[in-house]
Amino acid sequence: MEPFELSLTAAAEEIAAGRLSPVELTESVLARIETTEGALGAFAHVSADLARDQAVAAEKEIAAGRYRGPLHGIPLGVKDLYDTAGVPSTSSSKVRAGHVPDVDAVAVTRLFEAGMVMVGKTHTHEFAYGGRTHTTRNPWDVSRIPGGSSGGSGAAVAAGSCMVGMGTDTAGSIRIPASFCGTVGLKPTYGRTSRRGVASLSWSLDHVGPLTRNVEDCALVLDAIAGHDPLDPASVDVPVPGYTAGLTGDVTGLRIGVPTNYFFEHVHEDVERGVRAAIDVLVGLGAQVREVTIPYPDQILAAEWGIVTPEAAAYHQESLRSSAELYRPETRVQLEVGELLLATDYIKALRVRTLMQRAWAEMFTDIDVLVAPVLPFVAPRVEDMEVTWPDGSTESVDLAMVRLTSPANLTGQPTLALPVGFDPAGLPVGMQVMGRPFDEARLLDVGKAYEAATDVVGRLAPLG
Amino acid sequence: MEPFELSLTAAAEEIAAGRLSPVELTESVLARIETTEGALGAFAHVSADLARDQAVAAEKEIAAGRYRGPLHGIPLGVKDLYDTAGVPSTSSSKVRAGHVPDVDAVAVTRLFEAGMVMVGKTHTHEFAYGGRTHTTRNPWDVSRIPGGSSGGSGAAVAAGSCMVGMGTDTAGSIRIPASFCGTVGLKPTYGRTSRRGVASLSWSLDHVGPLTRNVEDCALVLDAIAGHDPLDPASVDVPVPGYTAGLTGDVTGLRIGVPTNYFFEHVHEDVERGVRAAIDVLVGLGAQVREVTIPYPDQILAAEWGIVTPEAAAYHQESLRSSAELYRPETRVQLEVGELLLATDYIKALRVRTLMQRAWAEMFTDIDVLVAPVLPFVAPRVEDMEVTWPDGSTESVDLAMVRLTSPANLTGQPTLALPVGFDPAGLPVGMQVMGRPFDEARLLDVGKAYEAATDVVGRLAPLG
Repeated sequence: MEPFELSLTAAAEEIAAGRLSPVELTESVLARIETTEGALGAFAHVSADLARDQAVAAEKEIAAGRYRGPLHGIPLGVKDLYDTAGVPSTSSSKVRAGHVPDVDAVAVTRLFEAGMVMVGKTHTHEFAYGGRTHTTRNPWDVSRIPGGSSGGSGAAVAAGSCMVGMGTDTAGSIRIPASFCGTVGLKPTYGRTSRRGVASLSWSLDHVGPLTRNVEDCALVLDAIAGHDPLDPASVDVPVPGYTAGLTGDVTGLRIGVPTNYFFEHVHEDVERGVRAAIDVLVGLGAQVREVTIPYPDQILAAEWGIVTPEAAAYHQESLRSSAELYRPETRVQLEVGELLLATDYIKALRVRTLMQRAWAEMFTDIDVLVAPVLPFVAPRVEDMEVTWPDGSTESVDLAMVRLTSPANLTGQPTLALPVGFDPAGLPVGMQVMGRPFDEARLLDVGKAYEAATDVVGRLAPLG
Repeated sequence: MEPFELSLTAAAEEIAAGRLSPVELTESVLARIETTEGALGAFAHVSADLARDQAVAAEKEIAAGRYRGPLHGIPLGVKDLYDTAGVPSTSSSKVRAGHVPDVDAVAVTRLFEAGMVMVGKTHTHEFAYGGRTHTTRNPWDVSRIPGGSSGGSGAAVAAGSCMVGMGTDTAGSIRIPASFCGTVGLKPTYGRTSRRGVASLSWSLDHVGPLTRNVEDCALVLDAIAGHDPLDPASVDVPVPGYTAGLTGDVTGLRIGVPTNYFFEHVHEDVERGVRAAIDVLVGLGAQVREVTIPYPDQILAAEWGIVTPEAAAYHQESLRSSAELYRPETRVQLEVGELLLATDYIKALRVRTLMQRAWAEMFTDIDVLVAPVLPFVAPRVEDMEVTWPDGSTESVDLAMVRLTSPANLTGQPTLALPVGFDPAGLPVGMQVMGRPFDEARLLDVGKAYEAATDVVGRLAPLG
């Protein structure tokens, strides 16, 4: 087994035991990037020099007895939306071509403080404004998309080109690539992790979180990045538990909400089968199923886009005035549409969100978690723009991609995506587990329980 | 002394001691309304029958030993923006002509549960959208405006036509009439009191609170209305202290912030003199002065109107479509302007508010309260539309009225208005005391300290 094949947790054990050096691990990952990048295109920028410097520094510190913990010396990919000091941070846009920040985003700072080694910046759709990461392919089948907008991180983690990929999630952009690429992905509670230093798509829906190979890896990263940042206006000062220390994988008595509407409508049978089988696994481990009705199903996408569109336009307004021609056509059109929307429409979207938040809080008095597919289908081919459902109706692939993930952005509730199987063609199927605000620990327990009882979570894509 | 001349606290003492009956008190107030209404026009609707029924019921309960507390049997006026079951609730608009709700607003319910007697609904500008209460005159000089939009409550409390007047405050609408009419007025922290059942002007700036004759009266009402309402989306679940029980009037060591900019600019010398003299009184009682600089002074009014205008338009959108002709012309124009504003402009106003809230929180780490004039001038004459300042500049009276009150709506911080003197013509001058979120108790102590050391607070207007 090559070092790049290890999960974070496994690599950390090797490093802690002195059987693997951060330099050796980093070189293995950099070599893996060399091998895979031609087919994948996951990285906007490979920061090999920085990674080697950080790996050497980590090796020296550890040799000197200053081991910082499980993240020390572990290779990391960071979505290009994040500022990284001294490393190009372009948000995959010509608008920011040549932009090299002086300061790291807060989440990156925390990961560096924990000793991580950044091998590169991962690709996204321009400014994260879309579910397709045009530059990047799916490592399970390179004729297919990895999803987005954290598509580079999804592809890289699944291919072994890094152990952790940082992502952002405004309408599903962590969970979608995690699901298409067969990795774990966590959108924490709104306000749990600082967004400072990360380009905003829609400030009231943006979340920062990791994509990882397995659930414990995810807990380790969350331990490092969770916490209050007074300079992120959305950040909330809620105590941070020890996510890894508290991880039990116990789901005895857990009340699992299973939606009777919305989340299983217009979902491919392979996906539905995979998710329902995963629910059965959890029930076999002691959980109970409660059927629930999702409130305001017809308002979800209108509220999501009614908020994203003008908030994105407000964020980009000045640079749209000065350099409209630098945007990709589809990004520019969406931003310009956002500039035409009325305040009253935005206010109505905000009000619907408030009603939804209240109704979901009520729904969660009867359940501990809600489970659903992440996506209605497995990763589409690059050229697929429309899906046809058995009832003859058709749907835009791009809209369908955010249909099941947007609710948790609107409610702000934490959501864990994890692989729960493969379709007959071998493409990953993902389940999402939504929880009460700041109840990430419970989601991780559910994920751990499923992971321990099956052999689905943690597989590397067979690419290369 | 007639019963109507008593403050709430004084009347409650008489009632508790059996020296005054709620019926006698209510009849005295209803007679006072008869005497004053011709000149004042404070009431949209006098609910004499309801008041008599409630007074008789209170009398019986008290006689039977079921005294509910200091609010029991006390006459109350309620701004017409509040729903009151079985009593016309028109928001002073033809749009709601004949509207008789089935259910009381939550604040009214709580006051009724405490035993209050409602003598009528007080006038406001149509849907509270303006600082002039066209129907109503100032009891200190009936050629002058009482301010607004809770102008009816201000005039009625100052004239002895009720002991407590409920108001709402979106840009100053409790504090402005309190100041022009020489009463105490409290805008509680955003989220401290339920707005459910009260017509919205601007949902993210609206506050519900009382106008009273003195500070202890104000504490008694706040005791009844403060608290969490899960069905008001803005309501916050923060413990409610005993405001009356905790009222000490002690300001020893209190750090009073005195603004060096914004709040004393373009302020009439009589007003400035009154407020500075009041600060000296507080210093004499043991408080300390700290000079502070108000952040973002040039953005305050843009943020206020950038939020009010579209939020009001969103609230009225449907009825503006169906019955535009029923609105007053100036209300309709403001609502129609709100319908033209872009989402991106509203978002910018929200962002400025967030920056302001942060900067004010920082400012309050060095001070306990901030004091300032409520208004730049005493009550203007009805025909006054413009004010000319000593530097030769002119300002719209209507805009000037909200200039000093809007900051506390944007920050959401609690603010107590209280009279601190009279100009040479005998018109009241008001000071506002702003506090940290949910620190109403401290504001009441400051008010009580000033009140006890002087003879300004609690005077009835000489009208009639």
